Amino acid sequence: MTAFARAAERVMQQLQQLAEISQHPQHLDRRYLTAEHAAANRQVAQWMTQSAMSNYTDAAGNLWGRLVSREPNARRFILGSHLDTVPNGGKYDGMLGVIAPVALAALLDEYAVHLPFHLDVVGFGDEEGTRFGSTLLGSRALTRSWPASWRNLTDAEGNCLPDAMQHFGLNFDKVAKAAIEPDEVLGFLELHIEQGPVLEDEDLPVGIVSAIAGARRFEFRITGMAGHAGTVPMRLRQDALTASAKIIVSIEKLAIEHNVVATVGQINNQPNGVNVIAGETLFSLDIRSSDDLHRDTVTELILAEAQRIATSHQVKLLWRQTHEAAAVACDPQLQAVLDEAVSTSQLRPFYLPSGAGHDAMALAQICPVAMLFTRCKGGISHHPDESITTGDIMVSLQVLFETVILLARQYRND
Amino acid sequence: MTAFARAAERVMQQLQQLAEISQHPQHLDRRYLTAEHAAANRQVAQWMTQSAMSNYTDAAGNLWGRLVSREPNARRFILGSHLDTVPNGGKYDGMLGVIAPVALAALLDEYAVHLPFHLDVVGFGDEEGTRFGSTLLGSRALTRSWPASWRNLTDAEGNCLPDAMQHFGLNFDKVAKAAIEPDEVLGFLELHIEQGPVLEDEDLPVGIVSAIAGARRFEFRITGMAGHAGTVPMRLRQDALTASAKIIVSIEKLAIEHNVVATVGQINNQPNGVNVIAGETLFSLDIRSSDDLHRDTVTELILAEAQRIATSHQVKLLWRQTHEAAAVACDPQLQAVLDEAVSTSQLRPFYLPSGAGHDAMALAQICPVAMLFTRCKGGISHHPDESITTGDIMVSLQVLFETVILLARQYRND
Repeated sequence: MTAFARAAERVMQQLQQLAEISQHPQHLDRRYLTAEHAAANRQVAQWMTQSAMSNYTDAAGNLWGRLVSREPNARRFILGSHLDTVPNGGKYDGMLGVIAPVALAALLDEYAVHLPFHLDVVGFGDEEGTRFGSTLLGSRALTRSWPASWRNLTDAEGNCLPDAMQHFGLNFDKVAKAAIEPDEVLGFLELHIEQGPVLEDEDLPVGIVSAIAGARRFEFRITGMAGHAGTVPMRLRQDALTASAKIIVSIEKLAIEHNVVATVGQINNQPNGVNVIAGETLFSLDIRSSDDLHRDTVTELILAEAQRIATSHQVKLLWRQTHEAAAVACDPQLQAVLDEAVSTSQLRPFYLPSGAGHDAMALAQICPVAMLFTRCKGGISHHPDESITTGDIMVSLQVLFETVILLARQYRND
Repeated sequence: MTAFARAAERVMQQLQQLAEISQHPQHLDRRYLTAEHAAANRQVAQWMTQSAMSNYTDAAGNLWGRLVSREPNARRFILGSHLDTVPNGGKYDGMLGVIAPVALAALLDEYAVHLPFHLDVVGFGDEEGTRFGSTLLGSRALTRSWPASWRNLTDAEGNCLPDAMQHFGLNFDKVAKAAIEPDEVLGFLELHIEQGPVLEDEDLPVGIVSAIAGARRFEFRITGMAGHAGTVPMRLRQDALTASAKIIVSIEKLAIEHNVVATVGQINNQPNGVNVIAGETLFSLDIRSSDDLHRDTVTELILAEAQRIATSHQVKLLWRQTHEAAAVACDPQLQAVLDEAVSTSQLRPFYLPSGAGHDAMALAQICPVAMLFTRCKGGISHHPDESITTGDIMVSLQVLFETVILLARQYRND
């Protein structure tokens, strides 16, 4: 068995062990600033120590490990992801991107690789936003992106963020101490499970992320006229649900034609009776693309078509945007390095956008970012069935190792 | 002012007065075997007496009034409808068909019309089925159609039907005493508000019902695969909601093409999250036609098209029928009499099917039935906004009067 195979087995075993640290007895649930967050930090810090890394917890509760460079005035290259989970979540979303880099550090130490930069591994305390409703609390502390209003964020039990931080041994007013300066960071690379079925469909263990898609979300409200299912002839109806169904069908058609992903995931219908024509139907739209301009163009096409359908069905359409996030492009130079590392590992470099948000989105504010996706079974995430293989962890470790070797060569030559 | 105009004003005033008898302080709600049912019976019995009618309550709690014929061995012709309402219902659905015939009896008495049959007016205690979940309890008592299992029907407070009957002064085991023999009944004519917008659209105060449509109801269950709205490309989705939307659109299209009414009134989607592809969607179908065979043919087309769409979307379709009722044709001879009565009233005879169920459906088991619809505002029913005009009540009374005169002539000649 190779060192990489042994490392992959250890990573898989550590991920299972980490999943035991949960605030819920039956399923995995680990939220920001809880006792379980502290316990997870302590456990991972121990593995960092075993990987020859120094470690500490920052002013936002993020755990850091460092494989120290012997170079004077070395800057830092960061690998990492998050250690929190959604309620009843999986064991790999986030955690793989912390535990695998810690194992990578051990391999680099074992092979006595000389690095011109400090290799930092960060385990963010909050990415999912489950406890306080806002996402990316961990990574946004690094980029000075905590708005003052977060002082008033509260969890389901009514605890405010400053109190929860104090209870964890932190101070809301000193969170800026977690910030890092752009000129000390070379880049950020996040390993993460794909959370989609594309790599499985392509029969590939890993993929290079081209960009993190920007999402817009809308709420559509269709108002027709409720009526008796037996007594109103078809031609005299103003059926909110059939009009909504036509719009939903048109959204799928336009998304396919114009190569964006668009999802109507939520629908609520009134009065929702078996023998009553629908009077009002609400539904959501989530539309994403790596290209904000293209996404916005397709959004306009969808809104125009929705209005056309509403008019022809004599129903009223109201829509409002409920969310907007810009796309984040991954750094071309870092993508090129990943491409070479994948090729060196005897694999076909394959690029795909990330439809989901990640810590790398926040880090992009201060440094070049890149992401490597690991194949996950059936594209399932945020669910106990989330699953990856030890073989794919091994490939991911190989690609990360090659990437660091290439980066070391590149920065040494700079 | 003519006698008919005065009678129409009295009917309108009595309908307003009757609507005050409600088990809910804010809105109209009058259910079977309640104190308010008894109070409504008492009030209408008083008006029957003023219309020169004898009256009594039968073994099912239905109120009967009779304008007695002087003929020996006279049979009975029945007019009537129901006195119960849905919760937060209107003042005319059901009640118009009782109160207007009582006023008609007064007019016949005033004009000293000699009838060869007893003119009976019935106010059924339950048609809507709100209290015990099963409909037509009043009229089905006349036709010996109470199944033994109704002994176990209970209301929302847990009272069983036999106890509720006892509290009302009735006996569940003696309900058969309410039955009437087919050979003593000449026919049943029900006046009812249309509950649809067709007469308003045709600019007509009344319409002759051709048939009461038979309805079938189905539950469709579409099972796809839930997934992340950002990470699953369109081509790899098994989206239960978009597949359902396509089926809903196809149902509307097939209903219009084949001249039936088909309604998807209810939809429930899982997990119903803004950023989650739908994994399972349930929706209802209610399909009606005056022609059962035609309805069943269109149903087969819909089911085949739904299966085709499910297959092409790689989702699983399960459906089950939850309800089936056969269409009830109105009696051709009684329709011809109504046609002549409408013409005599200087109106265009107009035929339309009833999409809703009515007491006449039950009575069709023992005698010829017919229905006359009165225009209602906006087709609205089962709602406080339910509205008719005094002018349309007057026209309805005229048509009923002419109908009884024509029936009297016909049966006298038989």
